[in-house]
Amino acid sequence: MSLAGFGSLHVGGRAAQLSGLPIRISQLTNAGAPTPLDPNGTHWVEAMYAQYFVPQDVRFELPLLMWHGGGLTGACWEGTPDGREGWLHHFVRRGWTTFSCDAVERGRSGFPPVPQVFAEAPVHQPAHWAWERFRIGTSGSRFPVDAYGQFVKQLVPRWTGTDDAILRGYLALLDEVGPCCVLAHSQGGQFAWLAAQARPGLVRALVLVEPSGVGDESQAEHLRPTPVLVVQGDGQQADERSAALRARIDAYLARIRSAGVDVDALDLPAHGITGNSHMMMLDLNSEQIAGLIADWLGARLSPAAPLGVMPA
Amino acid sequence: MSLAGFGSLHVGGRAAQLSGLPIRISQLTNAGAPTPLDPNGTHWVEAMYAQYFVPQDVRFELPLLMWHGGGLTGACWEGTPDGREGWLHHFVRRGWTTFSCDAVERGRSGFPPVPQVFAEAPVHQPAHWAWERFRIGTSGSRFPVDAYGQFVKQLVPRWTGTDDAILRGYLALLDEVGPCCVLAHSQGGQFAWLAAQARPGLVRALVLVEPSGVGDESQAEHLRPTPVLVVQGDGQQADERSAALRARIDAYLARIRSAGVDVDALDLPAHGITGNSHMMMLDLNSEQIAGLIADWLGARLSPAAPLGVMPA
Repeated sequence: MSLAGFGSLHVGGRAAQLSGLPIRISQLTNAGAPTPLDPNGTHWVEAMYAQYFVPQDVRFELPLLMWHGGGLTGACWEGTPDGREGWLHHFVRRGWTTFSCDAVERGRSGFPPVPQVFAEAPVHQPAHWAWERFRIGTSGSRFPVDAYGQFVKQLVPRWTGTDDAILRGYLALLDEVGPCCVLAHSQGGQFAWLAAQARPGLVRALVLVEPSGVGDESQAEHLRPTPVLVVQGDGQQADERSAALRARIDAYLARIRSAGVDVDALDLPAHGITGNSHMMMLDLNSEQIAGLIADWLGARLSPAAPLGVMPA
Repeated sequence: MSLAGFGSLHVGGRAAQLSGLPIRISQLTNAGAPTPLDPNGTHWVEAMYAQYFVPQDVRFELPLLMWHGGGLTGACWEGTPDGREGWLHHFVRRGWTTFSCDAVERGRSGFPPVPQVFAEAPVHQPAHWAWERFRIGTSGSRFPVDAYGQFVKQLVPRWTGTDDAILRGYLALLDEVGPCCVLAHSQGGQFAWLAAQARPGLVRALVLVEPSGVGDESQAEHLRPTPVLVVQGDGQQADERSAALRARIDAYLARIRSAGVDVDALDLPAHGITGNSHMMMLDLNSEQIAGLIADWLGARLSPAAPLGVMPA
């Protein structure tokens, strides 16, 4: 794999004035002296981290931004728990400049550990949640189930009341990067819809992998410049929560299609691809699905080429 | 830059049984239904994230593990706040398979947000701390001070009572990776000393950049197989805290040398290189310092070559 470069940046955030916090006396390392730590003052909070990889042979003018789901970080794109390459590799190999992002308060973006900024406590998943909620343990699952114990090591805490800050982070990245494509998973889908609407036309194509959120329907016209692909896995109907979410997402898609938004649906079982979990970027056929997405993006960005995926 | 590969892994950690925590009703996304979130059960905590880059042309048999300082993550090696390449690039370009690590509870390693695992609250730095404590704002500083506002975006919370868990994470990585070299900064130095001692001979060379911690003197003989380079910047004497820390580190080095440990000291001002801050991997002459370190490593791993840096 030849890279012209890689690196990272932090974008966005804001200055927060903290006061009234207790001064602690602490020894930060075993060679340090006990030191008063006064946390009062100006903190920079809610910045967002993104890591980028630029192929030597860039074949697409636009970069691809990958936005992870809840309880996860950009690490979910970097490889699979059973040791295969991730979707990040797939897109870089195909000539995409690719950004792997950590949402605000996730991973290398850090978090403000004071109730003055985030009032609530974060949520941390017990190990069995993902097994159930991500449809990993279902019959015929394509998830590498023997590596589930490795997968849970990458789960991180998340807050539930930080949507506005996370969206601001993604908008700061869009403003920094400029025209681009966005591939978002699960919780990331909510921010991808909203960010594309907030910057009409800046997101030139939007791929949503089992999105768990929706855009602002009253502003649906702002999505008209953006072709959208929604990818759904298997087994949702057998799981009450997944089925209800899928129904709400499908109803939303129908309504924004009526408003003139160009939405393709890739329902994997309808194309004979069965067994995919919510974490399809880690499933045993992850390369096949990445290929379908990359084909769709390539087709949508080069109108002369045939569509790799037909609208459902 | 040609890479044979890159990716990441999570190592270590342990199962923690949490009970008695309140069940919250929360709507995780704007398309989700309010859901009871029961955090009780088995959590995997204290795993550690490491991202690796393998050059196409590997020129050293051993990988290099880079361990960041307090309040930081592996992002500190990936570039400078004024947009230059980082030490990660330097070592990969010179043929090192390089691991950029996030300590336990830092960055993509995640953290257990419950007092049952980490009893204390984390520390988050006000923006001015690093300016003062890392000697960034001193006269003649080589830090890219105009980009200080960009730098503070990468600061993340840290705990002060998590040393044992962090060390276990690094040991899990050593056990996974095998023989290697370690380059550690500041707080990372404490873990590097202790990890090298806990696995005598596994760390074949140890580079400590302004370490803020020390090893276990009663076990100094376990460091004898490991040549050590300690790199110190400028201006420490003008800062009371830095001067006191430096004195304790120097006294420690003298004692372990007496115990037969092979320690080279690279005092940058003594070599005519002035103005380096505690964050010398981000300073304007960061490439020069990386080069001195890489020369030392190359010399120590290829005894036939002349030493690039002489003991002070």
